[in-house]
Amino acid sequence: MQRYFINQIVDDKARITGEDFHHIVRVMRMKLEDYVCLVTPDEQTAIAELIEIGDDFVQFKIVSRKESTSELPVHITIASGLPKGDKLELITQKGTELGAKSFLSFPAKRSISKWDSKKAQKKVERLDKIAKEAAEQSHRSVVPSFQHVMSFQALLDVAPSYDYIVVAYEESAKEGESSALATLFDQVDPGESILAIFGPEGGLAPEEIVKLEAVQALKVGLGPRILRTETAPLYFLAAASFAFELDKNG
Amino acid sequence: MQRYFINQIVDDKARITGEDFHHIVRVMRMKLEDYVCLVTPDEQTAIAELIEIGDDFVQFKIVSRKESTSELPVHITIASGLPKGDKLELITQKGTELGAKSFLSFPAKRSISKWDSKKAQKKVERLDKIAKEAAEQSHRSVVPSFQHVMSFQALLDVAPSYDYIVVAYEESAKEGESSALATLFDQVDPGESILAIFGPEGGLAPEEIVKLEAVQALKVGLGPRILRTETAPLYFLAAASFAFELDKNG
Repeated sequence: MQRYFINQIVDDKARITGEDFHHIVRVMRMKLEDYVCLVTPDEQTAIAELIEIGDDFVQFKIVSRKESTSELPVHITIASGLPKGDKLELITQKGTELGAKSFLSFPAKRSISKWDSKKAQKKVERLDKIAKEAAEQSHRSVVPSFQHVMSFQALLDVAPSYDYIVVAYEESAKEGESSALATLFDQVDPGESILAIFGPEGGLAPEEIVKLEAVQALKVGLGPRILRTETAPLYFLAAASFAFELDKNG
Repeated sequence: MQRYFINQIVDDKARITGEDFHHIVRVMRMKLEDYVCLVTPDEQTAIAELIEIGDDFVQFKIVSRKESTSELPVHITIASGLPKGDKLELITQKGTELGAKSFLSFPAKRSISKWDSKKAQKKVERLDKIAKEAAEQSHRSVVPSFQHVMSFQALLDVAPSYDYIVVAYEESAKEGESSALATLFDQVDPGESILAIFGPEGGLAPEEIVKLEAVQALKVGLGPRILRTETAPLYFLAAASFAFELDKNG
């Protein structure tokens, strides 16, 4: 069933305009009595029936509400040192499918890409759109947001607002470190937040690691193979899903 | 350190020709006394020094051998129902980074792509090349192979040669099934093989699921979110890495 994120449900009715109106009427060519799945900002999910098609709006009537959630029980924010090319698009699309709560990018010392504030605004708009589409497709009840911070210091400034800060560190993998992530997942309780930080193609610089350790970031390895900058966040999210959603007795 | 897969080491020396010769001399512009990492077909890894540069070959001398392995302790083969576009390339590249032992594709009932044997040969050559590059980049000591089988029956025929057969089944996820994968990973011992089967965009057809169940395939859900056809195998491999390489006491 097609899924739409809406602003509100009033008296068991929801009115949709704009891009989603266009999608429902022109792309999906829905007719009266067709059903969709609606998701409200407070993460409620409802099945609704199309009851009115206007010139620039459609109206739905709620027929049932769903109780189950498709959200990861822990809130994971993926922070990526600006990578090259369209890798942030892949991270955002796949990371949304895999349950990320939000995304963040920052200029790392070894980032080759540079974003001025104008470019950042345009990119963030595009990444927000990718997250919305992926959230609909993967049956999320939250659309992850994307934020770009303009300096490494700004990343350090927001970090303490998370319950846990981790940094994926290739050297940990090389040293054979193989339990920090599992130990962390054992400690984190449902509802808590994790900021997971990943370097750009050349990795994070040693001085960046030192600054992250100063704000209590935990270095974790992601197995013995060297993962690309866009693969590591997907590993992290899949491991979290396995640990928190499938291996509950582990 | 740059990594090359070679055929053999004789008297602690290795001779490299062809594409890798070109890469070493023209792309990397290596000089005498430079070091590389060499991997032999029996998965041995060695550090070697460049001792001779010929017109169409280079010669290396082994200076040390490595004991540690970067291979997943369980052998996972990813079998994909032919997806659209270049998704098999993404599955092969990222799946190699994440530790897959080999890849297989098959025409599923709902596959929109069709491969005749000529197209299959060309595609498999390209996918083998992608696997080789990803194996070098991610420090694998095995290059995963890619195989296309020309029918669903051929998939059923090879399936019993694996210790375990699993099929990722969206309906399992929808039904809230949340422990089959964790239970499976608890049962599998190091050295054993898993054939993990994934449908194309529209999923596997019910009659395909029935046939897979008849060869003892276990249906597993991959969490409550709906994953795209190219994301599901990456989730499976990352979860396996977490379970077998990081969460050893889980």
